[in-house]
Amino acid sequence: MLTAPGPVPSVTTPGPVVALDIGGTKIAGALVDAAGGILARSRRPTPAREDAETVLGAVEAVLADLAASPLWSAAGAVGIGSAGPVDAVRGTVSPVNVPGWRDFPLVERVRRLTGGRPVSLVGDGVAMTAAEHWLGAARGHDNALCLVVSTGVGGGLVLGGRLHPGPTGNAGHIGHLSVDLAGDPCACGGRGCVERLAAGPHLARHALDGGWRPGPDGDASAAAVARAAGAGHPAALAAFERAARALAAGIAATAHLVEIDVAVVGGGVAGAGEVLFAPLRRALADYATLSFARGLTVVPAATGTDAGLLGAAAAARA
Amino acid sequence: MLTAPGPVPSVTTPGPVVALDIGGTKIAGALVDAAGGILARSRRPTPAREDAETVLGAVEAVLADLAASPLWSAAGAVGIGSAGPVDAVRGTVSPVNVPGWRDFPLVERVRRLTGGRPVSLVGDGVAMTAAEHWLGAARGHDNALCLVVSTGVGGGLVLGGRLHPGPTGNAGHIGHLSVDLAGDPCACGGRGCVERLAAGPHLARHALDGGWRPGPDGDASAAAVARAAGAGHPAALAAFERAARALAAGIAATAHLVEIDVAVVGGGVAGAGEVLFAPLRRALADYATLSFARGLTVVPAATGTDAGLLGAAAAARA
Repeated sequence: MLTAPGPVPSVTTPGPVVALDIGGTKIAGALVDAAGGILARSRRPTPAREDAETVLGAVEAVLADLAASPLWSAAGAVGIGSAGPVDAVRGTVSPVNVPGWRDFPLVERVRRLTGGRPVSLVGDGVAMTAAEHWLGAARGHDNALCLVVSTGVGGGLVLGGRLHPGPTGNAGHIGHLSVDLAGDPCACGGRGCVERLAAGPHLARHALDGGWRPGPDGDASAAAVARAAGAGHPAALAAFERAARALAAGIAATAHLVEIDVAVVGGGVAGAGEVLFAPLRRALADYATLSFARGLTVVPAATGTDAGLLGAAAAARA
Repeated sequence: MLTAPGPVPSVTTPGPVVALDIGGTKIAGALVDAAGGILARSRRPTPAREDAETVLGAVEAVLADLAASPLWSAAGAVGIGSAGPVDAVRGTVSPVNVPGWRDFPLVERVRRLTGGRPVSLVGDGVAMTAAEHWLGAARGHDNALCLVVSTGVGGGLVLGGRLHPGPTGNAGHIGHLSVDLAGDPCACGGRGCVERLAAGPHLARHALDGGWRPGPDGDASAAAVARAAGAGHPAALAAFERAARALAAGIAATAHLVEIDVAVVGGGVAGAGEVLFAPLRRALADYATLSFARGLTVVPAATGTDAGLLGAAAAARA
């Protein structure tokens, strides 16, 4: 038990909050101050193939590291951003890539591990969005979509100046909008989802199918495809073009559905820079056709690899 | 000038409001009480091919009819639901099928025509949604999508228990989500939009292309295709199946993006009943795959042909 020595500080204190970023490969934790400064941090690999309690053990180890900080006792609420799906109403998580956790009561378990501190839970796409709205490229925008284009495609929404996590904390799942209703089957059970067309592994597969080949280092990642596209390889360019069109259709759908004025794109695939953003902007003009969507801009994310922790901290303060 | 004899009543009085429903074929108006009762009504054909002032003349004639009611002087605010796009910030409308009105300052003109009453403006899809949330099938639901499937496909959203018109009053434009990103060009400039696959005229065209033929009365409407589908005609069934899949992909996209628990479907094509709803429910199971979307239900709209007027009244009271 990582019980604070005295009474747990109130959520409204200007002191730090405890942030947890839970993914399929790593579990990160931090103490984050009111300005977004990271005062202490820890991370462990996610034992993703192990049983539920072993996975929780990694969370407990991260919290123990943070509790060793002299600032721990001043830390108030806890915010968790977790790989989804999550259920913020019941406080449970069922991360696709962590099979041992199905409807796992993470909120209650973390509450007990942190001396009864109040715990907030959002999905990882919502957390990244909270971070970009607080400190990144969506700052000052009242209506925004933020996306993470990586091994999968996730996202979150800001509507009317506030984070819109939805009733269960899952809103903004842009990766599973079908933009090709008779297209290839997606891991989610649907067809032609944005993720199926734009996520890194699918993008790289499309380049391979088109005749692109990795170099001597054998690197067949989306980053390697991006380098080939930058050098003008037609199959690599075609793979980014296809991903960009899928992302554009999904972003335009969001603009037509809820009205947004900016789309912020982060994640490893977005690291390709103009190789992705140039065709994305072109394609957006083809799909965001209605008058109220024409001012929409697309920009790179700004909060970097700490987005999950900063977003979890924002959720704790909300 | 239809000036009230005395001071304009406050918006918060329990008295009636003035509702205007402006479409490409008719302009309807009503005095609507606080329970949704229609106390007086009028309608005129829309002179859709005429100049801006002639179209406004039809609005003025409808308002003059209402002003002849002894209840007029008790009527407070004015609500307008208009064919879109609209711009609720600037108070202007640019209905696709009324070319004489482009950025037409309808709010200011109606304000002047009604003795300076406060005027609210929303798109017609948002108005129908307000009506269904107030008095229809979305009543009691905090997160809902309402759709009108007719000559076009429109819609609106209820999020967190409140109408979500978006900054400019256009949110919920589900007809222009692309669900087939390389599909047929849509009138909006996009491709493979829900409207391009599911609206009545496109549905009927698809049935004709598949070999269905109208009866001796020559009726080639979606309603005639619905009757043929009910009698088991394969091309008619295929046309409804295709429309249902497009609608399902759009509804599922909405559920994955903002979390909704009900989709309410109205409009002429929805009048086909189970011919549409049965394949729609089946297709929804294929696309609404994420855990938080699986409880989503699809139901017919309940407010009927007065939905536009009741929604405009709801907007006036909001």
